[in-house]
Amino acid sequence: MGSSEPTRILVAVSESTIKGYPHASISSTGAFDWTIEKIVRSNTPGFKLLFLHVQVPDEDGFDDMDSIYASPEDFRNMRHRDKVRGIHLLEYFVNKCHEIGIACEAWIKKGDPKEVICREVQRIHPDLLVVGSRGLGPFQRVFVGTVSEFCVKHAECPVITIKRRADETPEDPVDD
Amino acid sequence: MGSSEPTRILVAVSESTIKGYPHASISSTGAFDWTIEKIVRSNTPGFKLLFLHVQVPDEDGFDDMDSIYASPEDFRNMRHRDKVRGIHLLEYFVNKCHEIGIACEAWIKKGDPKEVICREVQRIHPDLLVVGSRGLGPFQRVFVGTVSEFCVKHAECPVITIKRRADETPEDPVDD
Repeated sequence: MGSSEPTRILVAVSESTIKGYPHASISSTGAFDWTIEKIVRSNTPGFKLLFLHVQVPDEDGFDDMDSIYASPEDFRNMRHRDKVRGIHLLEYFVNKCHEIGIACEAWIKKGDPKEVICREVQRIHPDLLVVGSRGLGPFQRVFVGTVSEFCVKHAECPVITIKRRADETPEDPVDD
Repeated sequence: MGSSEPTRILVAVSESTIKGYPHASISSTGAFDWTIEKIVRSNTPGFKLLFLHVQVPDEDGFDDMDSIYASPEDFRNMRHRDKVRGIHLLEYFVNKCHEIGIACEAWIKKGDPKEVICREVQRIHPDLLVVGSRGLGPFQRVFVGTVSEFCVKHAECPVITIKRRADETPEDPVDD
């Protein structure tokens, strides 16, 4: 009760696989909305939200089929553009927090999301980690892996997994 | 934000394997303390705690070696005494809530804890389930099972597992 430090909640957020940057995935916005509605409620001074977005390095460089890379700058520009897209994603959540009046921080890391999230938990020691989940069945999980299961097992802090609502699941449940 | 209904948190509590009834297990009190300190904080009107204690039916009747059962009443008395012990366990948490000024309810069920907890989640639809965990390694887990892992997989609501603090782990980590 007496703790005056706010409860620090790390929320891992990802971009929409359907709409791409800067749109947030359904499970990310679901996790954020749930945290505000059920945990923070009206007690905004009692909490601080920390948003982590992990960008997966593009190994083959082929997700932008229409671009022509003719010089080293083209590659630097591409990387810069990726970063900018990640920033726009975080801006969505930071703006929401600003409207609600809750303190927040947001940052981007590159790497394998599940490993980076657990490493950031070790580094910043949040009180709680919230991850959204597509709520996939065992068959779908095999092919896409699940960040949430890994974090529940390995993150060194309590973890809440928030599954998407059934009525928000897209036609292909692997989409998000 | 606008929700006026309090957030309903189901906390599964068990008795101490070291001290027995009416003492609560280390992981139960840890889960309760964490919930109050990190989630409820000073916002007591925003939350309601629901305490569920699941009593495991004693299949062989041999955990009370000094009793003599000479009549049907002896068995009824034994069952009555078990119930009373469970009530004393719940009384600890209800008293704590009363001191803090947070609304609560508490009840006892019989059965396999992990299955009963998930069934109660289906029945009462809490916003969140909090379970304590001994934080056992894979080798220890094989022999004692873990309620928390089962609930994270099967409960139909978000689940937080609160591990015991390292400095509260008894000599034999299977104890609680």
